[in-house]
Amino acid sequence: MNTNLYIYNTLVRKKVKFEAINPPFVGIYVCGPTVYGDSHLGHARPAITFDVLFRYLKYLAYKVRYVRNITDVGHLVNDADEGEDKIVRKAKLEKLEPMEVVQQYTNSYHRDMEQLNTLKPSIEPHASGHILEQIEMAEQIIDNGFAYQINGSVYFDVEKYSKTNEYGKLSGRVLEDLKTNTRSLDRQSEKKNPFDFALWKKAAPEHIMRWNSKWSEGFPGWHLECSVMGIKYLGKKFDIHGGGLDLLFPHHECEIAQSKAANGTDTVKYWMHNNLITIDGQKMSKSLGNFIVLNDVFTGNNKRLEQAYSPQTVRFFILQAHYRNPLDFSNKALKASEKGLMRLFNGIDTLNKLKTEKNSTVEINNIKEKCFAAINDDLNTPILISHLFDGIRMINSIHAGKEKINQKDKLELIKLYSDIVFDILGLKKTKQEKLTNNVSAELVNLILNTRLEAKKNRNFATADKIRNELNKLGFVIKDKKDGFEWEKK
Amino acid sequence: MNTNLYIYNTLVRKKVKFEAINPPFVGIYVCGPTVYGDSHLGHARPAITFDVLFRYLKYLAYKVRYVRNITDVGHLVNDADEGEDKIVRKAKLEKLEPMEVVQQYTNSYHRDMEQLNTLKPSIEPHASGHILEQIEMAEQIIDNGFAYQINGSVYFDVEKYSKTNEYGKLSGRVLEDLKTNTRSLDRQSEKKNPFDFALWKKAAPEHIMRWNSKWSEGFPGWHLECSVMGIKYLGKKFDIHGGGLDLLFPHHECEIAQSKAANGTDTVKYWMHNNLITIDGQKMSKSLGNFIVLNDVFTGNNKRLEQAYSPQTVRFFILQAHYRNPLDFSNKALKASEKGLMRLFNGIDTLNKLKTEKNSTVEINNIKEKCFAAINDDLNTPILISHLFDGIRMINSIHAGKEKINQKDKLELIKLYSDIVFDILGLKKTKQEKLTNNVSAELVNLILNTRLEAKKNRNFATADKIRNELNKLGFVIKDKKDGFEWEKK
Repeated sequence: MNTNLYIYNTLVRKKVKFEAINPPFVGIYVCGPTVYGDSHLGHARPAITFDVLFRYLKYLAYKVRYVRNITDVGHLVNDADEGEDKIVRKAKLEKLEPMEVVQQYTNSYHRDMEQLNTLKPSIEPHASGHILEQIEMAEQIIDNGFAYQINGSVYFDVEKYSKTNEYGKLSGRVLEDLKTNTRSLDRQSEKKNPFDFALWKKAAPEHIMRWNSKWSEGFPGWHLECSVMGIKYLGKKFDIHGGGLDLLFPHHECEIAQSKAANGTDTVKYWMHNNLITIDGQKMSKSLGNFIVLNDVFTGNNKRLEQAYSPQTVRFFILQAHYRNPLDFSNKALKASEKGLMRLFNGIDTLNKLKTEKNSTVEINNIKEKCFAAINDDLNTPILISHLFDGIRMINSIHAGKEKINQKDKLELIKLYSDIVFDILGLKKTKQEKLTNNVSAELVNLILNTRLEAKKNRNFATADKIRNELNKLGFVIKDKKDGFEWEKK
Repeated sequence: MNTNLYIYNTLVRKKVKFEAINPPFVGIYVCGPTVYGDSHLGHARPAITFDVLFRYLKYLAYKVRYVRNITDVGHLVNDADEGEDKIVRKAKLEKLEPMEVVQQYTNSYHRDMEQLNTLKPSIEPHASGHILEQIEMAEQIIDNGFAYQINGSVYFDVEKYSKTNEYGKLSGRVLEDLKTNTRSLDRQSEKKNPFDFALWKKAAPEHIMRWNSKWSEGFPGWHLECSVMGIKYLGKKFDIHGGGLDLLFPHHECEIAQSKAANGTDTVKYWMHNNLITIDGQKMSKSLGNFIVLNDVFTGNNKRLEQAYSPQTVRFFILQAHYRNPLDFSNKALKASEKGLMRLFNGIDTLNKLKTEKNSTVEINNIKEKCFAAINDDLNTPILISHLFDGIRMINSIHAGKEKINQKDKLELIKLYSDIVFDILGLKKTKQEKLTNNVSAELVNLILNTRLEAKKNRNFATADKIRNELNKLGFVIKDKKDGFEWEKK
């Protein structure tokens, strides 16, 4: 299988040609949410980025197994090796069993991701469902000499690992710098070195989520789950591992070290990272109070929002930036995306209605090539979208009679927009759009035909009344010579 | 907390007063699906039965933790201790990793249950996510002397257990009968007795789903998961365990034995079982080819179906029988339910529009008491529904001017129907219903007002044309003296 897809591999810091390890199969692992709160804008970006990758690889006829995990244990507050488990803390606050918290926020994550029209992953494993495998991998790492046990906990020995392996190869961190910068923060720790990380933590007496192991009743370290589940479902060598840039260090760096320490080989061929979302130029964080959950974006229920933005507007907004660039969320930007998306959909509607001629004056292949060149260039969706808009301008020129298109070209253009907009970019027409395409559309046509007849009978009072009533319901009517056009505001 | 709810406890074979172990908390465990195929009518009945129980207990202000599992490992073909794992077999057929099969059918189960408007359980644990706990429980049972290891597998020793405990207390099976009836079938078995059941099975070399244990690489026995997950999330003593009658023996009988053997105490206070669904009088089974998956019922895509039936029609159909009675699925019965549901919803619409007078000539408390008496009588939903229809007849009498209702009574009646129909029975108006309540309804009114005017102007041709066009779109128009009424077919 030979494709022209290039992706940026964080591991080598450049764009490289994507070549599947075992074509036509492709394995992708993406870090999913820690389910202790409603999902926010920061969850939408990786979900949509890797959804487009998943969709595009499937479009290229790869057989893709896409694994995205649910972190429901072991992720401690501050992402460090000390402190409370994020889910346990939430469970205490809400007076629930931790797994009730997990269920509640897994459900809301699923609801939001469905709204954003992301495809469900092939497998969605839970960290808590793989305790046995995590214990076994920790044992393997101890057996291979790269971890030590102390007071019932097990830590990865970064210094030992570094003697024969390159710790920092993904993030570019240098161990000597880490030594200087982190030592003083962590004086109370039982770890040999502050940059060592937990594979297993002995549970404090009040810790609810705990399992038996030979070392202690405890729970696995946060980094371990992704190594374990990636390997379990995709094998010891798989194609792509994705996640947010915030996970690059320490999470992904530690994954690499664990897998290498356990199996002696590197696991992941391509590492991909999406950049983060800021809000009005600021980092999004709970402490700054500029944290917007997705459901609030969809309903407009947040004081920072001037209106509600539909899930498809949010999706389009995210696709209008390249996934490796930062993206700033503002009302202005979202409103622009809303308009842009509508222009794109209206253009597709116009395309479907174009009258065809015997000969074309337009060139379709050119647009098609540019579109695929953009997506093949490390999923450059903003450039891809700009080519789609060039196409829309061409479509409008044809519609205005300035250019001509024949039947063959029209069908090809319809297929191109359908493949790219709906299948690959995963955009879809919203409910409101659909509503006006259904019963309501028929009713509007019926009433406007009645109005046409009234006008013919010079019953202008009725005709005006109908127009006014339809306006009130949000329909805009354009009178034409022998008929009418209308759209829903 | 004192309520008048009585439920039939299979354990004592009679209706008993429901008294929570630790009010206001109630723990419910219900056996969920084995996810190796699309969910069918047989899945809808327990889901809806225990959804109504969940809703009603919440209505009574209990704090309910409702656990419903996903069986994704260990359930062997023929429900016995030999043969292939159901999911592994499907995975081979579909050339997928078993967990891809699990994900696919878990997704479709969720989709169907959402369509049926069942509430999501508080926790939905996976069997494969609790291997460690299952190994530990098997160890506990061995330690207590009620299980034995042979060739890497572990079996529950039913005969030994029976010497000090009552095996068969739930199902009424007698061990001596089991001895006579099952011995000959199972000559090759490594089990001491044919009625012994697996706690752990050594995996055959070709078996994909396998975990390490001290006994062998293998997988847990099917019955074990429910004991483990019930106890893990609801405690060693919890209120209600539900499931289909087909699970009573051996599954639930074995659960009781396992939990008692491990912990020395009985776990479940109330055992509840829903009866099964037949199709045109026959048992539903794959071999008879009368197997109807829910999605086909909703779309009408099955040769046994004369039309599609909406999820709410299916829900209403199931509620029109008492959960402990058999229920026969036929086109005739479904069509009757469809009509009945429409009559109920129309009645509620009429109720909302009733004109009030100073004094009532009707008695509200009487209906209310009868309704709650029915639901308190072991969730007798068919009797409850018949009282709701009595109420609808009363509502229609008021609407026709034969009876009168005052504002206070009207509000009370609206609350009663809302509580029972929507909150407790969990029925909801369908999309189609909603559609006609939105933009379309306004459009229909607009066009019918235009028609009214046409009639006044003696423009009968236009009036007839509008009626015909609306009929084509599925609207039925009733002309009234000074206006119109309409409904969507």
